[in-house]
Amino acid sequence: MSKYKIIIEYDGTDYIGWQKQENGKSIQQTIEDSIEMLTSEKISLYGAGRTDAGVHAFGQVGHFEIKKNIELNKIRDGLNQHLRPNPIAILNVEKVDENFHSRFSAKLRSYKYRIVNRRSPLTIDRNRAWAVYKKLNIKKIIYEANNFIGKHNLAAFRSINCQSKTTTKTIESINVNYENNELDINISAKSFLHSQVRIMVGTLIEIGKGKIKESISDIIKSKDRSRAGMTAPAHGLYLIKVRY
Amino acid sequence: MSKYKIIIEYDGTDYIGWQKQENGKSIQQTIEDSIEMLTSEKISLYGAGRTDAGVHAFGQVGHFEIKKNIELNKIRDGLNQHLRPNPIAILNVEKVDENFHSRFSAKLRSYKYRIVNRRSPLTIDRNRAWAVYKKLNIKKIIYEANNFIGKHNLAAFRSINCQSKTTTKTIESINVNYENNELDINISAKSFLHSQVRIMVGTLIEIGKGKIKESISDIIKSKDRSRAGMTAPAHGLYLIKVRY
Repeated sequence: MSKYKIIIEYDGTDYIGWQKQENGKSIQQTIEDSIEMLTSEKISLYGAGRTDAGVHAFGQVGHFEIKKNIELNKIRDGLNQHLRPNPIAILNVEKVDENFHSRFSAKLRSYKYRIVNRRSPLTIDRNRAWAVYKKLNIKKIIYEANNFIGKHNLAAFRSINCQSKTTTKTIESINVNYENNELDINISAKSFLHSQVRIMVGTLIEIGKGKIKESISDIIKSKDRSRAGMTAPAHGLYLIKVRY
Repeated sequence: MSKYKIIIEYDGTDYIGWQKQENGKSIQQTIEDSIEMLTSEKISLYGAGRTDAGVHAFGQVGHFEIKKNIELNKIRDGLNQHLRPNPIAILNVEKVDENFHSRFSAKLRSYKYRIVNRRSPLTIDRNRAWAVYKKLNIKKIIYEANNFIGKHNLAAFRSINCQSKTTTKTIESINVNYENNELDINISAKSFLHSQVRIMVGTLIEIGKGKIKESISDIIKSKDRSRAGMTAPAHGLYLIKVRY
Protein backbone atom coordinates (compact mmCIF):
# COMPACT_ATOMS: atom_id res chain seq x y z
CA MET A 1 0.00 0.00 0.00
CA SER A 2 1.16 3.55 -0.74
CA LYS A 3 -0.16 6.61 1.06
CA TYR A 4 -0.80 9.83 -0.84
CA LYS A 5 -1.37 13.37 0.43
CA ILE A 6 -3.46 15.62 -1.81
CA ILE A 7 -4.07 19.37 -1.69
CA ILE A 8 -7.64 20.24 -2.62
CA GLU A 9 -9.37 23.45 -3.74
CA TYR A 10 -13.15 23.76 -3.88
CA ASP A 11 -16.14 26.03 -4.14
CA GLY A 12 -18.30 24.71 -1.30
CA THR A 13 -21.51 26.49 -2.37
CA ASP A 14 -23.42 23.47 -3.66
CA TYR A 15 -22.16 20.84 -1.19
CA ILE A 16 -23.34 19.71 2.23
CA GLY A 17 -19.75 20.19 3.44
CA TRP A 18 -16.59 18.10 3.52
CA GLN A 19 -18.00 15.13 5.35
CA LYS A 20 -20.06 12.28 3.92
CA GLN A 21 -23.69 12.36 5.06
CA GLU A 22 -26.92 10.74 4.00
CA ASN A 23 -28.63 13.96 2.96
CA GLY A 24 -26.62 15.21 0.00
CA LYS A 25 -23.43 15.57 -1.98
CA SER A 26 -20.24 16.01 0.05
CA ILE A 27 -16.76 17.03 -1.06
CA GLN A 28 -15.28 13.90 0.57
CA GLN A 29 -17.64 11.51 -1.26
CA THR A 30 -17.16 13.27 -4.60
CA ILE A 31 -13.36 12.93 -4.38
CA GLU A 32 -13.57 9.34 -3.07
CA ASP A 33 -15.68 8.47 -6.12
CA SER A 34 -13.11 9.99 -8.46
CA ILE A 35 -10.24 8.10 -6.75
CA GLU A 36 -12.18 4.85 -7.11
CA MET A 37 -12.88 5.59 -10.77
CA LEU A 38 -9.19 6.26 -11.40
CA THR A 39 -7.74 3.32 -9.43
CA SER A 40 -10.55 0.75 -9.43
CA GLU A 41 -9.74 0.34 -5.73
CA LYS A 42 -12.13 0.86 -2.82
CA ILE A 43 -10.56 3.58 -0.66
CA SER A 44 -11.26 5.95 2.23
CA LEU A 45 -10.30 9.62 2.00
CA TYR A 46 -9.48 11.51 5.22
CA GLY A 47 -9.49 15.31 5.37
CA ALA A 48 -7.65 17.81 7.57
CA GLY A 49 -10.69 20.00 8.18
CA ARG A 50 -14.36 19.01 8.15
CA THR A 51 -15.59 22.21 6.50
CA ASP A 52 -19.31 22.99 6.79
CA ALA A 53 -21.79 23.35 3.93
CA GLY A 54 -20.92 26.44 1.87
CA VAL A 55 -17.36 26.81 3.22
CA HIS A 56 -14.63 26.96 0.55
CA ALA A 57 -11.06 25.72 0.45
CA PHE A 58 -7.90 26.85 -1.32
CA GLY A 59 -5.76 24.33 0.57
CA GLN A 60 -7.72 21.48 2.14
CA VAL A 61 -5.50 18.43 2.67
CA GLY A 62 -6.56 14.81 2.34
CA HIS A 63 -4.88 11.41 2.36
CA PHE A 64 -5.73 7.94 1.06
CA GLU A 65 -4.01 4.62 0.45
CA ILE A 66 -3.97 2.55 -2.74
CA LYS A 67 -2.25 -0.65 -3.85
CA LYS A 68 -1.43 0.47 -7.40
CA ASN A 69 1.64 2.54 -8.09
CA ILE A 70 0.66 5.54 -10.22
CA GLU A 71 2.85 8.50 -11.16
CA LEU A 72 2.00 11.57 -9.03
CA ASN A 73 1.12 13.85 -11.96
CA LYS A 74 -1.08 11.14 -13.42
CA ILE A 75 -3.01 10.89 -10.15
CA ARG A 76 -3.53 14.68 -10.11
CA ASP A 77 -4.58 14.94 -13.76
CA GLY A 78 -6.67 11.75 -13.62
CA LEU A 79 -8.57 12.84 -10.51
CA ASN A 80 -9.19 16.27 -12.00
CA GLN A 81 -10.54 14.60 -15.13
CA HIS A 82 -12.95 12.45 -13.10
CA LEU A 83 -13.94 15.39 -10.88
CA ARG A 84 -15.27 17.47 -13.79
CA PRO A 85 -17.64 19.29 -13.83
CA ASN A 86 -17.58 19.56 -10.02
CA PRO A 87 -15.91 22.79 -8.75
CA ILE A 88 -13.32 20.65 -6.94
CA ALA A 89 -9.68 20.43 -8.05
CA ILE A 90 -6.62 18.52 -6.90
CA LEU A 91 -3.71 20.99 -6.85
CA ASN A 92 -0.94 18.66 -5.76
CA VAL A 93 -0.25 14.99 -4.99
CA GLU A 94 2.68 13.63 -3.01
CA LYS A 95 3.66 10.29 -1.52
CA VAL A 96 3.79 10.32 2.28
CA ASP A 97 5.03 8.11 5.07
CA GLU A 98 2.61 5.50 6.44
CA ASN A 99 2.39 7.46 9.73
CA PHE A 100 1.04 10.60 8.03
CA HIS A 101 -2.56 11.49 8.84
CA SER A 102 -4.13 14.55 7.21
CA ARG A 103 -6.22 15.26 10.32
CA PHE A 104 -4.11 14.09 13.26
CA SER A 105 -0.66 15.10 11.96
CA ALA A 106 -1.74 18.70 11.22
CA LYS A 107 0.28 21.31 13.16
CA LEU A 108 -1.42 24.49 11.96
CA ARG A 109 -4.66 25.25 10.15
CA SER A 110 -5.15 28.66 8.51
CA TYR A 111 -8.54 30.08 7.66
CA LYS A 112 -9.50 33.30 5.92
CA TYR A 113 -12.85 35.01 6.35
CA ARG A 114 -13.88 37.60 3.71
CA ILE A 115 -16.32 40.42 4.54
CA VAL A 116 -17.41 43.14 2.13
CA ASN A 117 -18.61 46.22 4.02
CA ARG A 118 -20.81 48.30 1.71
CA ARG A 119 -24.43 49.17 1.06
CA SER A 120 -24.70 47.41 -2.30
CA PRO A 121 -25.26 43.65 -2.58
CA LEU A 122 -22.51 41.39 -3.92
CA THR A 123 -22.33 40.31 -7.56
CA ILE A 124 -19.01 38.74 -8.59
CA ASP A 125 -18.31 37.77 -4.95
CA ARG A 126 -21.77 36.43 -4.21
CA ASN A 127 -21.42 33.21 -2.15
CA ARG A 128 -17.72 34.07 -1.81
CA ALA A 129 -17.84 36.74 0.91
CA TRP A 130 -20.21 38.01 3.61
CA ALA A 131 -21.89 41.30 2.69
CA VAL A 132 -22.24 43.50 5.77
CA TYR A 133 -24.29 46.61 4.96
CA LYS A 134 -23.86 48.62 8.16
CA LYS A 135 -20.67 50.71 8.34
CA LEU A 136 -18.14 48.94 10.56
CA ASN A 137 -15.69 50.43 13.02
CA ILE A 138 -12.62 48.79 11.49
CA LYS A 139 -10.14 50.13 14.07
CA LYS A 140 -12.16 48.61 16.89
CA ILE A 141 -12.34 45.25 15.10
CA ILE A 142 -8.55 45.22 14.61
CA TYR A 143 -7.98 46.21 18.25
CA GLU A 144 -10.35 43.59 19.64
CA ALA A 145 -9.15 40.82 17.29
CA ASN A 146 -5.75 40.90 18.95
CA ASN A 147 -7.33 39.79 22.23
CA PHE A 148 -7.89 36.37 20.69
CA ILE A 149 -4.15 35.66 20.38
CA GLY A 150 -2.83 32.99 22.76
CA LYS A 151 -4.19 30.08 24.78
CA HIS A 152 -7.77 30.48 26.06
CA ASN A 153 -10.81 28.55 27.14
CA LEU A 154 -13.00 29.33 24.12
CA ALA A 155 -16.24 27.77 25.39
CA ALA A 156 -18.07 31.01 24.45
CA PHE A 157 -16.98 30.55 20.84
CA ARG A 158 -18.27 27.12 19.94
CA SER A 159 -21.48 25.84 18.45
CA ILE A 160 -23.95 24.19 20.81
CA ASN A 161 -23.41 21.08 18.63
CA CYS A 162 -19.68 21.00 19.42
CA GLN A 163 -18.71 17.64 20.91
CA SER A 164 -15.12 18.45 21.84
CA LYS A 165 -14.23 17.42 25.41
CA THR A 166 -11.77 20.25 25.92
CA THR A 167 -12.52 23.86 24.99
CA THR A 168 -8.99 25.21 25.43
CA LYS A 169 -7.43 26.28 22.14
CA THR A 170 -4.41 28.36 21.17
CA ILE A 171 -4.83 31.04 18.51
CA GLU A 172 -1.37 31.33 16.95
CA SER A 173 -2.18 34.39 14.85
CA ILE A 174 -5.02 36.62 13.76
CA ASN A 175 -4.50 39.24 11.07
CA VAL A 176 -7.11 41.71 9.92
CA ASN A 177 -6.64 43.48 6.57
CA TYR A 178 -8.91 46.19 5.24
CA GLU A 179 -8.79 47.54 1.69
CA ASN A 180 -11.42 48.83 -0.77
CA ASN A 181 -14.36 47.97 1.53
CA GLU A 182 -13.08 44.42 2.00
CA LEU A 183 -12.20 43.16 5.45
CA ASP A 184 -10.20 39.91 5.52
CA ILE A 185 -9.70 38.13 8.83
CA ASN A 186 -6.95 35.47 8.81
CA ILE A 187 -6.87 33.07 11.76
CA SER A 188 -4.37 30.25 12.43
CA ALA A 189 -4.41 27.57 15.13
CA LYS A 190 -3.48 23.92 15.49
CA SER A 191 -7.18 23.07 15.77
CA PHE A 192 -10.55 24.72 16.26
CA LEU A 193 -13.83 24.01 18.03
CA HIS A 194 -16.99 23.53 15.95
CA SER A 195 -17.97 26.84 14.24
CA GLN A 196 -15.24 28.61 16.22
CA VAL A 197 -13.91 30.75 13.35
CA ARG A 198 -17.41 31.76 12.28
CA ILE A 199 -18.42 32.73 15.86
CA MET A 200 -15.15 34.65 16.34
CA VAL A 201 -15.85 36.56 13.11
CA GLY A 202 -19.53 37.09 13.92
CA THR A 203 -18.57 38.52 17.32
CA LEU A 204 -15.94 40.87 15.85
CA ILE A 205 -18.48 42.13 13.30
CA GLU A 206 -21.09 42.80 16.01
CA ILE A 207 -18.42 44.69 17.94
CA GLY A 208 -17.66 46.65 14.75
CA LYS A 209 -21.37 47.47 14.42
CA GLY A 210 -21.53 48.63 18.05
CA LYS A 211 -24.09 45.93 18.81
CA ILE A 212 -21.77 44.13 21.25
CA LYS A 213 -20.10 46.49 23.71
CA GLU A 214 -18.11 43.93 25.73
CA SER A 215 -14.46 43.31 24.93
CA ILE A 216 -13.33 40.00 23.44
CA SER A 217 -11.33 39.36 26.64
CA ASP A 218 -14.47 39.65 28.79
CA ILE A 219 -16.48 37.41 26.46
CA ILE A 220 -13.71 34.78 26.55
CA LYS A 221 -13.65 34.94 30.37
CA SER A 222 -17.44 34.52 30.57
CA LYS A 223 -17.29 31.13 28.73
CA ASP A 224 -20.87 32.02 27.80
CA ARG A 225 -21.96 31.40 24.19
CA SER A 226 -24.82 33.87 24.57
CA ARG A 227 -22.42 36.76 25.17
CA ALA A 228 -20.51 36.10 21.93
CA GLY A 229 -22.00 37.15 18.57
CA MET A 230 -23.78 35.41 15.75
CA THR A 231 -22.24 32.61 13.71
CA ALA A 232 -21.00 34.35 10.55
CA PRO A 233 -22.36 32.73 7.35
CA ALA A 234 -20.41 29.82 5.89
CA HIS A 235 -19.90 31.34 2.43
CA GLY A 236 -17.29 33.90 3.60
CA LEU A 237 -14.98 31.22 5.04
CA TYR A 238 -11.98 29.62 3.30
CA LEU A 239 -9.64 26.87 4.53
CA ILE A 240 -6.40 28.33 3.16
CA LYS A 241 -3.58 26.08 4.31
CA VAL A 242 -2.71 23.17 6.58
CA ARG A 243 0.84 22.77 7.86
CA TYR A 244 2.44 19.53 9.06
CA MET B 1 -34.96 66.60 -16.27
CA SER B 2 -32.04 65.53 -14.07
CA LYS B 3 -29.15 63.46 -15.30
CA TYR B 4 -27.63 60.76 -13.09
CA LYS B 5 -24.33 58.90 -13.37
CA ILE B 6 -24.24 55.41 -11.87
CA ILE B 7 -21.33 53.06 -11.15
CA ILE B 8 -22.25 49.45 -11.83
CA GLU B 9 -20.74 46.11 -10.79
CA TYR B 10 -21.79 42.83 -12.40
CA ASP B 11 -21.05 39.18 -12.95
CA GLY B 12 -21.47 38.92 -16.73
CA THR B 13 -21.59 35.10 -16.85
CA ASP B 14 -25.30 34.67 -17.59
CA TYR B 15 -25.85 37.74 -19.78
CA ILE B 16 -25.54 38.35 -23.52
CA GLY B 17 -23.38 41.38 -22.67
CA TRP B 18 -24.01 45.02 -21.84
CA GLN B 19 -26.03 45.91 -24.90
CA LYS B 20 -29.72 45.23 -25.53
CA GLN B 21 -30.27 42.59 -28.20
CA GLU B 22 -33.16 40.45 -29.37
CA ASN B 23 -31.59 37.15 -28.35
CA GLY B 24 -31.36 37.28 -24.57
CA LYS B 25 -30.95 39.11 -21.30
CA SER B 26 -28.57 42.09 -21.32
CA ILE B 27 -27.13 44.08 -18.43
CA GLN B 28 -28.41 47.33 -19.99
CA GLN B 29 -32.00 46.07 -20.29
CA THR B 30 -32.01 44.61 -16.78
CA ILE B 31 -30.93 47.93 -15.25
CA GLU B 32 -33.30 49.96 -17.48
CA ASP B 33 -36.15 47.78 -16.22
CA SER B 34 -35.19 48.42 -12.59
CA ILE B 35 -34.96 52.21 -13.20
CA GLU B 36 -38.43 52.16 -14.78
CA MET B 37 -39.80 50.13 -11.87
CA LEU B 38 -38.34 52.63 -9.39
CA THR B 39 -39.33 55.85 -11.17
CA SER B 40 -42.34 54.85 -13.29
CA GLU B 41 -40.64 56.80 -16.10
CA LYS B 42 -39.61 55.45 -19.51
CA ILE B 43 -35.85 56.00 -19.73
CA SER B 44 -32.76 55.09 -21.76
CA LEU B 45 -29.57 53.96 -20.04
CA TYR B 46 -26.23 54.61 -21.77
CA GLY B 47 -23.06 52.75 -20.79
CA ALA B 48 -19.37 53.65 -21.00
CA GLY B 49 -18.29 50.26 -22.32
CA ARG B 50 -20.30 47.76 -24.33
CA THR B 51 -18.90 44.67 -22.62
CA ASP B 52 -19.35 41.33 -24.41
CA ALA B 53 -21.23 38.28 -23.11
CA GLY B 54 -19.42 36.84 -20.10
CA VAL B 55 -17.30 39.95 -19.40
CA HIS B 56 -17.56 41.31 -15.84
CA ALA B 57 -17.43 44.83 -14.41
CA PHE B 58 -16.33 46.32 -11.11
CA GLY B 59 -16.79 49.86 -12.40
CA GLN B 60 -18.98 50.16 -15.47
CA VAL B 61 -20.50 53.64 -15.73
CA GLY B 62 -23.95 54.50 -17.01
CA HIS B 63 -26.17 57.57 -17.23
CA PHE B 64 -29.89 58.25 -17.56
CA GLU B 65 -32.33 61.14 -17.22
CA ILE B 66 -35.52 61.27 -15.17
CA LYS B 67 -38.08 63.95 -14.35
CA LYS B 68 -38.57 63.03 -10.70
CA ASN B 69 -36.19 64.29 -8.07
CA ILE B 70 -35.09 61.37 -5.88
CA GLU B 71 -32.41 61.38 -3.18
CA LEU B 72 -29.19 59.78 -4.45
CA ASN B 73 -29.02 57.05 -1.77
CA LYS B 74 -32.65 56.18 -2.41
CA ILE B 75 -31.93 55.70 -6.10
CA ARG B 76 -29.00 53.39 -5.27
CA ASP B 77 -30.88 51.32 -2.68
CA GLY B 78 -34.10 51.27 -4.73
CA LEU B 79 -32.35 50.09 -7.90
CA ASN B 80 -30.46 47.42 -5.94
CA GLN B 81 -33.76 46.26 -4.49
CA HIS B 82 -35.34 45.96 -7.95
CA LEU B 83 -32.21 44.33 -9.41
CA ARG B 84 -32.35 41.36 -7.04
CA PRO B 85 -31.66 38.51 -7.60
CA ASN B 86 -29.60 39.54 -10.64
CA PRO B 87 -25.83 39.63 -9.96
CA ILE B 88 -25.84 43.34 -10.85
CA ALA B 89 -25.36 46.10 -8.26
CA ILE B 90 -25.35 49.89 -8.30
CA LEU B 91 -22.35 51.03 -6.24
CA ASN B 92 -22.83 54.77 -6.50
CA VAL B 93 -25.22 57.40 -7.88
CA GLU B 94 -24.43 61.06 -8.51
CA LYS B 95 -26.12 63.95 -10.28
CA VAL B 96 -24.24 65.17 -13.35
CA ASP B 97 -24.29 68.09 -15.72
CA GLU B 98 -26.57 67.85 -18.77
CA ASN B 99 -23.49 67.63 -21.03
CA PHE B 100 -22.18 64.48 -19.35
CA HIS B 101 -22.26 61.32 -21.47
CA SER B 102 -21.04 58.04 -19.97
CA ARG B 103 -19.65 56.90 -23.33
CA PHE B 104 -18.53 60.05 -25.10
CA SER B 105 -17.20 61.98 -22.08
CA ALA B 106 -14.97 59.09 -20.94
CA LYS B 107 -11.26 59.99 -20.82
CA LEU B 108 -9.77 56.67 -19.70
CA ARG B 109 -11.09 53.11 -19.54
CA SER B 110 -9.24 50.54 -17.42
CA TYR B 111 -9.61 46.80 -17.92
CA LYS B 112 -8.13 43.90 -15.99
CA TYR B 113 -7.63 40.44 -17.45
CA ARG B 114 -7.12 37.53 -15.00
CA ILE B 115 -5.22 34.38 -16.03
CA VAL B 116 -4.51 31.42 -13.76
CA ASN B 117 -1.49 29.45 -14.99
CA ARG B 118 -1.64 25.95 -13.52
CA ARG B 119 -2.44 22.36 -14.45
CA SER B 120 -5.57 22.03 -12.30
CA PRO B 121 -8.94 23.37 -13.43
CA LEU B 122 -10.52 26.36 -11.68
CA THR B 123 -13.08 25.99 -8.89
CA ILE B 124 -13.75 29.18 -6.90
CA ASP B 125 -12.57 31.29 -9.87
CA ARG B 126 -14.46 29.37 -12.53
CA ASN B 127 -15.98 31.88 -15.02
CA ARG B 128 -13.89 34.55 -13.29
CA ALA B 129 -10.46 33.91 -14.81
CA TRP B 130 -8.91 32.14 -17.80
CA ALA B 131 -7.23 28.86 -16.88
CA VAL B 132 -4.07 28.38 -18.97
CA TYR B 133 -2.60 24.91 -18.37
CA LYS B 134 0.71 25.19 -20.25
CA LYS B 135 3.55 26.78 -18.27
CA LEU B 136 3.99 30.39 -19.40
CA ASN B 137 7.18 32.36 -19.84
CA ILE B 138 6.12 35.23 -17.58
CA LYS B 139 9.27 37.34 -18.13
CA LYS B 140 8.70 37.27 -21.87
CA ILE B 141 5.05 38.29 -21.46
CA ILE B 142 6.03 41.24 -19.24
CA TYR B 143 8.77 42.29 -21.70
CA GLU B 144 6.51 42.08 -24.75
CA ALA B 145 3.52 43.75 -23.04
CA ASN B 146 5.49 46.97 -22.76
CA ASN B 147 5.65 47.20 -26.56
CA PHE B 148 1.93 48.01 -26.55
CA ILE B 149 2.43 51.32 -24.73
CA GLY B 150 1.83 54.43 -26.84
CA LYS B 151 -0.04 55.36 -30.01
CA HIS B 152 -0.26 52.64 -32.67
CA ASN B 153 -2.32 51.44 -35.56
CA LEU B 154 -3.83 48.38 -33.89
CA ALA B 155 -5.57 46.90 -36.96
CA ALA B 156 -3.98 43.52 -36.13
CA PHE B 157 -5.72 43.56 -32.73
CA ARG B 158 -9.36 43.98 -33.61
CA SER B 159 -12.18 41.56 -34.30
CA ILE B 160 -13.20 41.07 -37.94
CA ASN B 161 -16.59 42.42 -36.79
CA CYS B 162 -15.09 45.74 -35.68
CA GLN B 163 -16.78 48.64 -37.45
CA SER B 164 -14.49 51.42 -36.26
CA LYS B 165 -13.33 53.72 -39.09
CA THR B 166 -9.99 54.44 -37.49
CA THR B 167 -7.73 51.77 -36.01
CA THR B 168 -5.26 54.10 -34.27
CA LYS B 169 -5.46 53.87 -30.49
CA THR B 170 -3.22 55.00 -27.63
CA ILE B 171 -2.44 52.54 -24.84
CA GLU B 172 -1.80 54.75 -21.81
CA SER B 173 -0.57 51.94 -19.56
CA ILE B 174 -0.20 48.19 -19.38
CA ASN B 175 0.83 46.50 -16.13
CA VAL B 176 1.43 42.81 -15.72
CA ASN B 177 1.43 41.32 -12.20
CA TYR B 178 2.27 37.73 -11.39
CA GLU B 179 1.71 36.11 -7.99
CA ASN B 180 0.71 32.61 -6.83
CA ASN B 181 0.15 31.31 -10.38
CA GLU B 182 -2.11 34.26 -11.21
CA LEU B 183 -1.20 36.63 -14.02
CA ASP B 184 -3.15 39.90 -14.07
CA ILE B 185 -2.88 42.17 -17.09
CA ASN B 186 -4.15 45.74 -16.53
CA ILE B 187 -4.68 47.89 -19.63
CA SER B 188 -5.84 51.51 -19.82
CA ALA B 189 -6.74 53.62 -22.84
CA LYS B 190 -9.24 56.32 -23.79
CA SER B 191 -11.00 53.81 -26.03
CA PHE B 192 -10.54 50.37 -27.56
CA LEU B 193 -11.35 48.58 -30.81
CA HIS B 194 -13.77 45.65 -30.74
CA SER B 195 -12.23 42.67 -28.83
CA GLN B 196 -8.93 44.59 -28.63
CA VAL B 197 -8.12 43.76 -25.00
CA ARG B 198 -8.95 40.09 -25.49
CA ILE B 199 -6.79 39.84 -28.65
CA MET B 200 -3.92 41.68 -26.93
CA VAL B 201 -4.12 39.21 -24.02
CA GLY B 202 -4.52 36.18 -26.30
CA THR B 203 -1.42 37.25 -28.25
CA LEU B 204 0.66 37.78 -25.09
CA ILE B 205 -0.37 34.33 -23.83
CA GLU B 206 0.61 32.66 -27.12
CA ILE B 207 3.96 34.46 -26.89
CA GLY B 208 4.28 33.16 -23.32
CA LYS B 209 3.59 29.62 -24.57
CA GLY B 210 6.20 29.99 -27.33
CA LYS B 211 3.51 29.48 -29.98
CA ILE B 212 3.97 32.99 -31.40
CA LYS B 213 7.62 33.88 -31.96
CA GLU B 214 7.15 37.37 -33.43
CA SER B 215 7.45 40.42 -31.19
CA ILE B 216 4.42 42.57 -30.38
CA SER B 217 6.09 45.45 -32.29
CA ASP B 218 6.31 43.39 -35.46
CA ILE B 219 2.72 42.19 -35.15
CA ILE B 220 1.53 45.78 -34.67
CA LYS B 221 3.51 46.88 -37.76
CA SER B 222 2.00 44.06 -39.86
CA LYS B 223 -1.59 45.35 -39.25
CA ASP B 224 -2.49 41.71 -39.97
CA ARG B 225 -5.07 40.08 -37.65
CA SER B 226 -3.81 36.61 -38.61
CA ARG B 227 -0.38 37.30 -37.10
CA ALA B 228 -1.82 38.23 -33.70
CA GLY B 229 -3.07 35.51 -31.33
CA MET B 230 -6.41 34.09 -30.35
CA THR B 231 -9.17 36.15 -28.75
CA ALA B 232 -8.86 35.36 -25.03
CA PRO B 233 -12.14 34.13 -23.49
CA ALA B 234 -14.59 36.75 -22.21
CA HIS B 235 -14.81 35.39 -18.65
CA GLY B 236 -11.31 36.57 -17.62
CA LEU B 237 -12.05 40.22 -18.49
CA TYR B 238 -13.21 42.96 -16.09
CA LEU B 239 -14.09 46.60 -16.78
CA ILE B 240 -12.48 48.10 -13.67
CA LYS B 241 -12.86 51.86 -13.94
CA VAL B 242 -13.85 54.70 -16.25
CA ARG B 243 -12.40 58.16 -15.73
CA TYR B 244 -13.96 61.44 -16.91
